[in-house]
Amino acid sequence: MPETFRVGLLGRGTVGSAFARLLEERADAIVPVTGLRPALSGVLTRSQGDFEEILEGSDLIVELMGGLDPARDYVLRAMRAGRHVVSANKQLLAAHGEELWATAREHGVQLRFEGAVAGVVPVIRVLQESLAAARVERVHGIVNGTTNYILSEMARAGLSYEEALGQAQQLGYAEADPTEDVTGKDAAAKMAILARLAFSTPVHLDQVVYEGIEHLTSDDLAYAKELGLALKLIGTAERVDGGISVRVHPAFLYAAHPLASVDGPFNAVTVESEDITEITLSGPGAGGPQTASAVLGDVISAMIPPATTPETTQTLAVVEDVVSAFYLHMEVADRPGVLAQIAEILGMQGASIKSVVQRGLGDNARLVMVIHPLLESRFYAAVRLIGQLEFMRAPPRAIRVIDEEFV
Amino acid sequence: MPETFRVGLLGRGTVGSAFARLLEERADAIVPVTGLRPALSGVLTRSQGDFEEILEGSDLIVELMGGLDPARDYVLRAMRAGRHVVSANKQLLAAHGEELWATAREHGVQLRFEGAVAGVVPVIRVLQESLAAARVERVHGIVNGTTNYILSEMARAGLSYEEALGQAQQLGYAEADPTEDVTGKDAAAKMAILARLAFSTPVHLDQVVYEGIEHLTSDDLAYAKELGLALKLIGTAERVDGGISVRVHPAFLYAAHPLASVDGPFNAVTVESEDITEITLSGPGAGGPQTASAVLGDVISAMIPPATTPETTQTLAVVEDVVSAFYLHMEVADRPGVLAQIAEILGMQGASIKSVVQRGLGDNARLVMVIHPLLESRFYAAVRLIGQLEFMRAPPRAIRVIDEEFV
Repeated sequence: MPETFRVGLLGRGTVGSAFARLLEERADAIVPVTGLRPALSGVLTRSQGDFEEILEGSDLIVELMGGLDPARDYVLRAMRAGRHVVSANKQLLAAHGEELWATAREHGVQLRFEGAVAGVVPVIRVLQESLAAARVERVHGIVNGTTNYILSEMARAGLSYEEALGQAQQLGYAEADPTEDVTGKDAAAKMAILARLAFSTPVHLDQVVYEGIEHLTSDDLAYAKELGLALKLIGTAERVDGGISVRVHPAFLYAAHPLASVDGPFNAVTVESEDITEITLSGPGAGGPQTASAVLGDVISAMIPPATTPETTQTLAVVEDVVSAFYLHMEVADRPGVLAQIAEILGMQGASIKSVVQRGLGDNARLVMVIHPLLESRFYAAVRLIGQLEFMRAPPRAIRVIDEEFV
Repeated sequence: MPETFRVGLLGRGTVGSAFARLLEERADAIVPVTGLRPALSGVLTRSQGDFEEILEGSDLIVELMGGLDPARDYVLRAMRAGRHVVSANKQLLAAHGEELWATAREHGVQLRFEGAVAGVVPVIRVLQESLAAARVERVHGIVNGTTNYILSEMARAGLSYEEALGQAQQLGYAEADPTEDVTGKDAAAKMAILARLAFSTPVHLDQVVYEGIEHLTSDDLAYAKELGLALKLIGTAERVDGGISVRVHPAFLYAAHPLASVDGPFNAVTVESEDITEITLSGPGAGGPQTASAVLGDVISAMIPPATTPETTQTLAVVEDVVSAFYLHMEVADRPGVLAQIAEILGMQGASIKSVVQRGLGDNARLVMVIHPLLESRFYAAVRLIGQLEFMRAPPRAIRVIDEEFV
């Protein structure tokens, strides 16, 4: 029986509940990675639980209450008692980060906060670890999923700001009171945290200039399309004249910018540095399960020394014959019956044709088909037979298709 | 004076030389992160250096020789001697990974290899740490920059495979003998490593089915465009029927797939899991400095316990007035002299007009301008003055533009 690693949870809202579920569901899978089995040792909500008691019975505290008070006090007390802390509280870190990080250092504990910025997109880990000593020049980010969804819908469907906001609220992408998101304040807190990590300099939320999206019109989005640009709410942290600038505002992006194609409720962050050119990380920005997954990644990291190539935990069969969709390209003599014969062979192998384009080429014709997914062995059996037909003018050519429509 | 952390380097090719330079350049910046100052303690090349001597004088060995022999022997001996190892040798890990990882565990040392897959794109760290206990369903990757460059050029410029390959060779994106890249073998080794980490099951290079891009024609790329698809060399590792499939082959991707817009010599990897939906990591796939940067990130991680919020190392001024390009949207009375007056005010503030679109709206007109970069304070001063002109029909509206052309 592996030893238990006791996790105390503060807060049981959307993310807190998702985290509690995920921890239980993945506990067995965590044992081979860490040698320990994590378990919830207590949950503090507004109406139940006692903080001191939970702290006493825990090896690590997960803070998912949000807000500054009493979250700040609890996190400080937990670290002073020698407990690692994992938090997803961006406002807390953007306002009191230096005090919290100093306390973590002083007491030799870890304070992890991947879930505070861009949900499951691992930008905190990458800045703190992969790029620990890189000279970062600039961080650009789409770090608020609500506003990105609204702008995407305004661009895609020509909706007004109010219509797109209403739609976001209906779908659960925006809260009933969307102020923090649409004014850029939420993104400003996240950019303060990213700037602190990227430049190793203190950055407080109050130093971040921000502007929201409430004043944008469908007309602006229409001009963006005309100009070949994308309109996004962009957070920027960059070196300027020996100092830094940290700001959030709507901005037009040229089409090839890595953030220009990030649509819907997604988040993405681009880090630029001379050494690395640039890297971009993207994924769902919010959502209970996604943020909970980022929190769990932090809990696991706090449980162990840095990754040491865990053992294989299973031996899975490596399957060679899989199901794929195909593009099939054939040069044939242009005469009656050709398509029928090809279709018959495909049909005998269970290959169903999704679409066909035929083009004349003098005496010959070119047939290009897209075939619905089937076992590759069956498809290639058909292709071998087709290749032997006397009217083929060149060997048939096949390329797989990865298409959402087929999934 | 911080203590020295001694790094022994095996191999001084493109990546090795870049790593040696980067280590020296960043040594000072690494001190506050790790408490130690890294320094090269010895370099082994084909013609100079003695492995035993370098091993004796090092705390960590960086293996950038490539090839299986003698790299495998050296890495094993280093770990048996209690040294951490950082390697960027994909063929070694894909062929002898289990032996190497078992040795690392047995001797309690770290074996890190971020540079072996997708250059500076931090996919190894994310799979091993952020997603340590996630149930990964699928990994899709563009993990070979040479072939992605070739396919991008075939698509963009209508080049033949041979023309695009020649161009890649001229630009240094392809080697004189491009066999490993264009046959898919290089990508297969990387996918074997990713599959091993994603599914915690042994995967050997020999189990990866692969197909290259040599048989693709500009015609296939033209059909891709016609079908609204992108044609890429895709590595796939996924769960299939209780086992896994690991393979590399050209594939058409639907336009919204996160890998469809990855062009040129870039690499990108998408990891799918129910918990996280999907995350995508992208960046330059190769290049000496980029891979060296990934290797350095691993060296730093091996020097310290997991990230504990390093102290701020500087206090940078937070600058509020920065230089930006702008889009400026104005509704004005449609009469002579309006544009001249606006242009004069802009000119007085040093704002230079890049483009103008004017449209009539009955008695009024709409003027949309793009303004070249200038200090925001000067731009907004102009906007305030423009807003006071008696022919304005609505307050002028300004949105920043992030445009590569301006940089």
